[in-house]
Amino acid sequence: MSSAYVHGYGPSEVERLRTQAATLAELLHADTAYPAGALVLEAGCGVGAQTVALAARSPHAHFTSIDQSAASIAQAQAAVAAAGLTNVVLQQADIFNLPFAQRSFDQVFLSFVLEHLSRPLDALTALRDIMKPGGTITVIEGDHGSAYFHPDSAYARRVIDCQVALQAGSGGDALIGRRLYPLLLDAGLAAPTVSPRMVYVDASKPAMADRFTRRTFAAMIEAVRAQAIDAGLISPADFDRGIADLYRTAAADGVFCYTFFKAVAVKR
Amino acid sequence: MSSAYVHGYGPSEVERLRTQAATLAELLHADTAYPAGALVLEAGCGVGAQTVALAARSPHAHFTSIDQSAASIAQAQAAVAAAGLTNVVLQQADIFNLPFAQRSFDQVFLSFVLEHLSRPLDALTALRDIMKPGGTITVIEGDHGSAYFHPDSAYARRVIDCQVALQAGSGGDALIGRRLYPLLLDAGLAAPTVSPRMVYVDASKPAMADRFTRRTFAAMIEAVRAQAIDAGLISPADFDRGIADLYRTAAADGVFCYTFFKAVAVKR
Repeated sequence: MSSAYVHGYGPSEVERLRTQAATLAELLHADTAYPAGALVLEAGCGVGAQTVALAARSPHAHFTSIDQSAASIAQAQAAVAAAGLTNVVLQQADIFNLPFAQRSFDQVFLSFVLEHLSRPLDALTALRDIMKPGGTITVIEGDHGSAYFHPDSAYARRVIDCQVALQAGSGGDALIGRRLYPLLLDAGLAAPTVSPRMVYVDASKPAMADRFTRRTFAAMIEAVRAQAIDAGLISPADFDRGIADLYRTAAADGVFCYTFFKAVAVKR
Repeated sequence: MSSAYVHGYGPSEVERLRTQAATLAELLHADTAYPAGALVLEAGCGVGAQTVALAARSPHAHFTSIDQSAASIAQAQAAVAAAGLTNVVLQQADIFNLPFAQRSFDQVFLSFVLEHLSRPLDALTALRDIMKPGGTITVIEGDHGSAYFHPDSAYARRVIDCQVALQAGSGGDALIGRRLYPLLLDAGLAAPTVSPRMVYVDASKPAMADRFTRRTFAAMIEAVRAQAIDAGLISPADFDRGIADLYRTAAADGVFCYTFFKAVAVKR
């Protein structure tokens, strides 16, 4: 099966995304391993980028990975097959209307999902209900307010703020990483442990400057150009200057910082 | 000798500052140890808070700790004596007019110094010159732009910006942590390695919420109230609201994040 199926941008793009996912996979997933026989629900698997990293690290656990989008499930299926993984069942399903009985799963995992939801607390509560007591829920989110850089630039900060505002406008929260601890407690989950995973990039790490600063973060912000301008958040000239300043932080004398938050909590 | 000499705010205050210094000492200094016989210059030792942590970790290295303030040197002398350390010589001296021959020291260390200097690059160059080839320079700095928190608050961000503006107004840079890498390279030092040291505080760490969020960071920002208002940067009401919002982040559902940067570079 051609791996171009996964993202559909041709072999070089797929190669880039794989490399990029691998870079962050170590930082985000290295300490997540489930025991043999564990029943794990991955909620909001999208196109399966995290699914592959997760399932490969726990080859004897059984994963059920769900997403509300049938198209994403198809892409995730292709990614799982391309990776040669046989311990993942993919299923179209809605976090807010889970087709599972209470206490079905030993463990729950979700990454980069809550940031998109207008009711993250309700999602966590629903996931808590399908967990067995004693099981853990692992949540990974970013936080765009954790981005800072050298050279500093008010324009660059402003284009990031545009992305944050647009995500908030569609009900999400691009600053959710910092509040995983109270969110998990509010959902009735016990003993949350939050560990920040900071990405620090200077010119001693040229691959990270390219893969993370330029092609992950700056590219993600750049992608909201039309929406930000249409929404009247910023002028085209200011947006373009902010994006140029963001890319500038990947130069030989630049520095870029960003932090992901990983939280693990327990169902009583 | 009474330890109240060190900061002069009475035994409970001294105890608090000691506890606080100990909390950060592990995070900042645990990986710095100099070999027996090494000649180490600590530049800008202030009242000796870092000196004690540093010298205790390298009992067989010889420290020369300098500061431009005679009063600080006297306090540092008291701190060193109170800690029972015998491997530190304290000396009043100016970084920009060092009373040492070139290639005098095996190692150089400085923490929370460059942030106060209008010419940090010149300071690094001067320090480089008194180092022996092959020696390392270790630099620790904070970065107030790395502070973010839950609940988020535009007022709290504004009072931090006041501190940053006041420090910039007196020639310093409270955002210097992020740019240690290019600074060290610009000073002609080789192979800088920068490691961020992030402090993440939620209610699972009540001692840190008290010692770091409230009594280190919020108290530091609160201390610029008069200057910020006098400088017309903010109204008294807005300042007080920002400070209240900062303290608020140490509550049971609050989160506070801050990052220190530690850099080590080599003299060729």
